[in-house]
Amino acid sequence: MTSHVIRQVRVTPIAFRDPPLLNAAGIHEPWALRAIIEIETASGLVGINETYGDLSMLQALAKASPALNGLSPWALSDMEARVAALVRPAAAASEFLGTHVSLAPGTHVSKTVAKVTSAFEVAMMDLQGQLANAPVVDLLGGASRDRVPFSAYLFYKYATHIDAPSSSGYPVDPWGEALTSAQLVTQAQRMIDAYGFKSIKLKAGALAPDDEAEHLLALAKAFPGTPLRIDPNANWSVETSLRIVEKLRGVLEYYEDPAPGLEGMAAVANASDVPLATNMVVTDFAEFRRNADMGCPVKIVLSDHHYWGGLRATQRLSTLCSTFDLGLSMHSNSHLGISLVAMTHLCASVPLLTYACDTHYPWQDDEVIEGGRLAFDEGSLRVPMGPGLGVTLDREALARLHDNYLSCGIRARDDLGQMKKYDPSFTGVQPRY
Amino acid sequence: MTSHVIRQVRVTPIAFRDPPLLNAAGIHEPWALRAIIEIETASGLVGINETYGDLSMLQALAKASPALNGLSPWALSDMEARVAALVRPAAAASEFLGTHVSLAPGTHVSKTVAKVTSAFEVAMMDLQGQLANAPVVDLLGGASRDRVPFSAYLFYKYATHIDAPSSSGYPVDPWGEALTSAQLVTQAQRMIDAYGFKSIKLKAGALAPDDEAEHLLALAKAFPGTPLRIDPNANWSVETSLRIVEKLRGVLEYYEDPAPGLEGMAAVANASDVPLATNMVVTDFAEFRRNADMGCPVKIVLSDHHYWGGLRATQRLSTLCSTFDLGLSMHSNSHLGISLVAMTHLCASVPLLTYACDTHYPWQDDEVIEGGRLAFDEGSLRVPMGPGLGVTLDREALARLHDNYLSCGIRARDDLGQMKKYDPSFTGVQPRY
Ligand SMILES: [Mg+2]
Ligand SMILES: [Mg+2]
Repeated sequence: MTSHVIRQVRVTPIAFRDPPLLNAAGIHEPWALRAIIEIETASGLVGINETYGDLSMLQALAKASPALNGLSPWALSDMEARVAALVRPAAAASEFLGTHVSLAPGTHVSKTVAKVTSAFEVAMMDLQGQLANAPVVDLLGGASRDRVPFSAYLFYKYATHIDAPSSSGYPVDPWGEALTSAQLVTQAQRMIDAYGFKSIKLKAGALAPDDEAEHLLALAKAFPGTPLRIDPNANWSVETSLRIVEKLRGVLEYYEDPAPGLEGMAAVANASDVPLATNMVVTDFAEFRRNADMGCPVKIVLSDHHYWGGLRATQRLSTLCSTFDLGLSMHSNSHLGISLVAMTHLCASVPLLTYACDTHYPWQDDEVIEGGRLAFDEGSLRVPMGPGLGVTLDREALARLHDNYLSCGIRARDDLGQMKKYDPSFTGVQPRY
Repeated sequence: MTSHVIRQVRVTPIAFRDPPLLNAAGIHEPWALRAIIEIETASGLVGINETYGDLSMLQALAKASPALNGLSPWALSDMEARVAALVRPAAAASEFLGTHVSLAPGTHVSKTVAKVTSAFEVAMMDLQGQLANAPVVDLLGGASRDRVPFSAYLFYKYATHIDAPSSSGYPVDPWGEALTSAQLVTQAQRMIDAYGFKSIKLKAGALAPDDEAEHLLALAKAFPGTPLRIDPNANWSVETSLRIVEKLRGVLEYYEDPAPGLEGMAAVANASDVPLATNMVVTDFAEFRRNADMGCPVKIVLSDHHYWGGLRATQRLSTLCSTFDLGLSMHSNSHLGISLVAMTHLCASVPLLTYACDTHYPWQDDEVIEGGRLAFDEGSLRVPMGPGLGVTLDREALARLHDNYLSCGIRARDDLGQMKKYDPSFTGVQPRY
């Protein structure tokens, strides 16, 4: 008799090219890290997933992997309990190296259990789908929509990395510099032409706030009727946030993390009628409650199954949101196709999710799945209806991306350190403006 | 190629004997109603479930059943949306006959969509389990425990029904009268001997409050160390609730719905440190929020998948509860084994559920599933690990129970009307004391 219990967990760190994208914390390094999870059963089935690739995450995954030995792919609650038992005491003792980049909630040590649970959950659900001959979206209650819309995620950027000159073999990305209204509009047009996105998000907090506001107004003029969002990642004071939102009156779909902390956001909410969104102050269930206890100054939660504890936890978050009349949108970090497909299954299963989701996908040029880069249609992805996630690993690509990891030298995301290479006086102290 | 889409929904109302159990609203009639759901696929698979059998529910089920035609058993979100579209306008227009018995939240018209969704969801998950060769508990994320504890649910009762004399062929139940401390202790002992329960709940609100308190203290004395609960179903004023809780100091595990309304419960919570539980003032997500907005006077929610919208909705409720530091327990109405087994799958999957669940099961003497009455072990039920719910219909029993329904004449639960047969002056006005 074939047994489908789990007998092996493989974690392969990978690195892929990332353009010099600016944000409140600094600038992206030439390589972005992820980890590819493979969970194999005694019967030889393999479930896959993609998650964070920082050293602290790799250590947590290594520590937690024995928890899966002998488990059924269906035993998600048991997996979570075992992961918590293995990881939480260490996390509490700060054994792991958290980078504490405020931009990347996934890198907070306090999220370790939720992150590892999510990393395993998706791969186990990929296995469940293979066992049940059902797509992951069906295991999540079935699709509320057959395609999931994403947004054009614009970044300020330099033309080239300071430390990856083309002479080194690292190609210059095709996007060019983006520091002005004209360059941003060109970036947006190019991305919309290629992907068909119907919404635009500007990652702000990098340049002077009034300049960023001007740029957003230029986008509003160039793309009339397109929902627009701006996200300064809490790099603006309450006063600056209120001055800028006044300039953007009538233009914003939502105002994402203008000011630091829930108190800062509450101060902005008190003096403005634009709905506030966050992936910085409501990043777990305890913070959800804090927001609720304060009368919900934040009206839209940007979730991310990678750090909220998984696909099912994010569905539960959607019920919390609808109970408290909050909206739900989706956050993203630099990622490849497995994360994108997991997100697509999830978002298709959540009726509340009416906002186009964030994705960094257009900024990457590589892939780890068979068939290569996923194709968007009018800004949306169709939910794959094969068993499980519906995508499989390209093992040659995985080996190549793992080689990148081994040779790139980066072991934890460090936007601040990278920015200091451009500007030694950069401190990263927030709010900057 | 075999298609597993749904092609037929059968709803069979049934009636089974119910003893003359007293409560705040009146007294149980000689027959309790339920409906058995069968959902059949084109491939001939049948998923089953058990739900409310009142006329209003049968009408809602009939109205909603066409929603399932052609649906995949995995399409739970789609099913819910279709049910809402078919049922909600009618419910809003009060087309259905709600009985508005305050004891039975499942009979409120406002719950119709949630009730019908739940009725179909469980049967569809029974189908999913057959398709995936997995028990329902695995489709819910796997078991956190392999057995689910229930409590001894004590009732005040008369020896016989006023309108079902043994001469009519309706047997006298073996439990006898229970109106005194001695009789209640005997009832508890008998139930514990037969089922092994480790917790005791007393359905109160029927006799004078001080007498009921005396009886509970007698139970505390007879069963030292056993967690005790009392549930007057909001039949006591705030003043009475506070006087009685003082008498019960140190004895109660939780204090269930002593006073009417969330405001009444809040008044009790303000003046007492015993945790308040409810299945009357937090019965849906909107009411959950009201409780949260008031600072959570109610500390324990008694859920019931039959009216909360299903097994998955109840799991989501558990996340709301843990987010707001609330406990979770389980409510019950008169039911047979399919409901009991669905509850067992659900409760096994919810880590938060640490209280023994309510069940009326010992008060019934019939069954609709193959193999007959389910066996408890030390007050717990083991989670069935066969595909789906793990139980199947006994078609002869179903036919017999349906005959009961046809001949019993009852079409909606009416504890108040039944009590008027014993006491024409009984008004049912609450709070009575
Ligand atoms: Mg953000
Ligand atoms: Mg109750």
